[in-house]
Amino acid sequence: MADTVTLSLEEGFTLAVEAFLANGCDRRNAEAVARNMMRAEGDRCASHGLFRLPGYLASLRAGKINGKADPTVIDLAPGAVKVDGDGAMAPVAHEAGYEPLIEKARSQGIAALALTRIHHFSALWIEVERLTEAGLVGFAFTAYKPVVTPGGGTKALYGTNPMAFGWPRPGKDPVIFDQASSAKARGEIQIAARDGHEVPPGTGIGPDGEETTDPNLILKGAQLPFGGYKGANIAMMVELLVAGLIGEWFSFEAAEKDAEDGGPPRGGEFMMAIDPARFGDADGWAAHSETFFERFLGIPGTRLPSARRYGNRKETPSDGITIPTSLHEKIREMM
Amino acid sequence: MADTVTLSLEEGFTLAVEAFLANGCDRRNAEAVARNMMRAEGDRCASHGLFRLPGYLASLRAGKINGKADPTVIDLAPGAVKVDGDGAMAPVAHEAGYEPLIEKARSQGIAALALTRIHHFSALWIEVERLTEAGLVGFAFTAYKPVVTPGGGTKALYGTNPMAFGWPRPGKDPVIFDQASSAKARGEIQIAARDGHEVPPGTGIGPDGEETTDPNLILKGAQLPFGGYKGANIAMMVELLVAGLIGEWFSFEAAEKDAEDGGPPRGGEFMMAIDPARFGDADGWAAHSETFFERFLGIPGTRLPSARRYGNRKETPSDGITIPTSLHEKIREMM
Repeated sequence: MADTVTLSLEEGFTLAVEAFLANGCDRRNAEAVARNMMRAEGDRCASHGLFRLPGYLASLRAGKINGKADPTVIDLAPGAVKVDGDGAMAPVAHEAGYEPLIEKARSQGIAALALTRIHHFSALWIEVERLTEAGLVGFAFTAYKPVVTPGGGTKALYGTNPMAFGWPRPGKDPVIFDQASSAKARGEIQIAARDGHEVPPGTGIGPDGEETTDPNLILKGAQLPFGGYKGANIAMMVELLVAGLIGEWFSFEAAEKDAEDGGPPRGGEFMMAIDPARFGDADGWAAHSETFFERFLGIPGTRLPSARRYGNRKETPSDGITIPTSLHEKIREMM
Repeated sequence: MADTVTLSLEEGFTLAVEAFLANGCDRRNAEAVARNMMRAEGDRCASHGLFRLPGYLASLRAGKINGKADPTVIDLAPGAVKVDGDGAMAPVAHEAGYEPLIEKARSQGIAALALTRIHHFSALWIEVERLTEAGLVGFAFTAYKPVVTPGGGTKALYGTNPMAFGWPRPGKDPVIFDQASSAKARGEIQIAARDGHEVPPGTGIGPDGEETTDPNLILKGAQLPFGGYKGANIAMMVELLVAGLIGEWFSFEAAEKDAEDGGPPRGGEFMMAIDPARFGDADGWAAHSETFFERFLGIPGTRLPSARRYGNRKETPSDGITIPTSLHEKIREMM
């Protein structure tokens, strides 16, 4: 049997939808998450594609995630809107929140979206790209369970706490970065542990609080933030925005209350959208910013964030996507 | 002659005001910048205190900075306000912008302030603290002349591009971080060069594009961002917010047009303010966030950002501040 299975994007979408429907989701919830997953797969961002499906299904079976969630949109202020996710997988809540966020950003200049009672297991770049498609500058932040130390600390307090930022480029692919606050992705450490490799210095500490390059010790200890205390500050900011500000769980609370079923814990997310047409350079901002990107690309060794994904995006509609046979079988077994 | 001079905070303020008045400033401009400087000195943040005065004075003498600036407040949208700085030193423009920004954040939930035609030479934490004093969450971003490489690049494109974030704690000192996007402060590299020391790996590259620990080569080459491409992404975000979004100069434009007189180039700044009372947990957010800070402080080795400054702030009103005699003389010579 081959190690991998190739699927068209349509086949991947149908597989995910059917797996969700077979595990207690209604069609709205199933399709919202499947669409999100296939945007990741379409860019060959496998870590946020079908790879996540068994975790979602486990959490649906455990009753932690609500597969028939009906999120509620709450108008908080002229520039602020909230979506109470009703225990949904995050993309279901996002689909309820994008339109009011975009409308508010256009009318107010800047607006924010608070998402609560969601389970986030997807890529933030997909979310900010929805804002750049509307011509807006976008930010997104979310937390997780504690795996990263605060600056100088010897114990995990923060999730990998990613943040994403997107810049619209009319007529071109947007510039988007989406990065964890940890020095390394947790998946990379898990793969090093599985394959018996060391990880680079600066990746994490063991249970004794000492820095180590042994991935097994780091998985029992804690990951380090990127860039020392500066990355730790970004992770702290994320905690305060997605939990303190909007009344959701901090990473430490999510861990205390999570069922540990392999799926995403409950948590919050915070997004901001800015309309560049409202900040004093409505006619010039896009062309002016292109002069910056030209300078950027004129420096040897540079590549704009997300450029590789956009290259992949051109190929997958015809080439399809490839997933491990073991993953394909696992999904089919859970259907 | 002693190496240092001790001044009371009042004496420092008067010294700065008189130096500005003697170099073409009106009283409003002189006092706004002197107040800002003495907030830095009061926290023993010497790098943003009187140390900056000779540079300001040089730029005033060169005619680059307008010492009689009269900034204009422009209402852009319900959630957006702009201050055209009229060539001012940044604190003059801020004092015009805080009130409309705070009022908008309270009425809209979130608001932004764009500052253009300013010369920024001060600490961002002072600015976001003005927002936390009003009970708001604050962000501030500004750029400079190119000294930092984009991720993977071998030439400088970004300024040290600091960002600051502030979190209000009713009845307590706010949590504020204010950090450059470069791995090291430029001043640290200059001091290492002066003293003949090496700098740590990861600080910068020489003119040949190769990493080096020789501070002299880095000062001729370029600094590296903190945390590799992730810190570079933060620096890029700052450029886009303070230049692309609001119609001001990117770092590369500031360098091309600057008079190189030792003072700050013209540039822009972007600030955001969020009212935590408008995000769905008006009664609970402050106490809930304190549970997070308790967890943080319960981890050995941690210290909240800015805690050291708040300690200093208790001492300087009685102890005064100490500046090098050479700096004191230089200021007096320029009066």
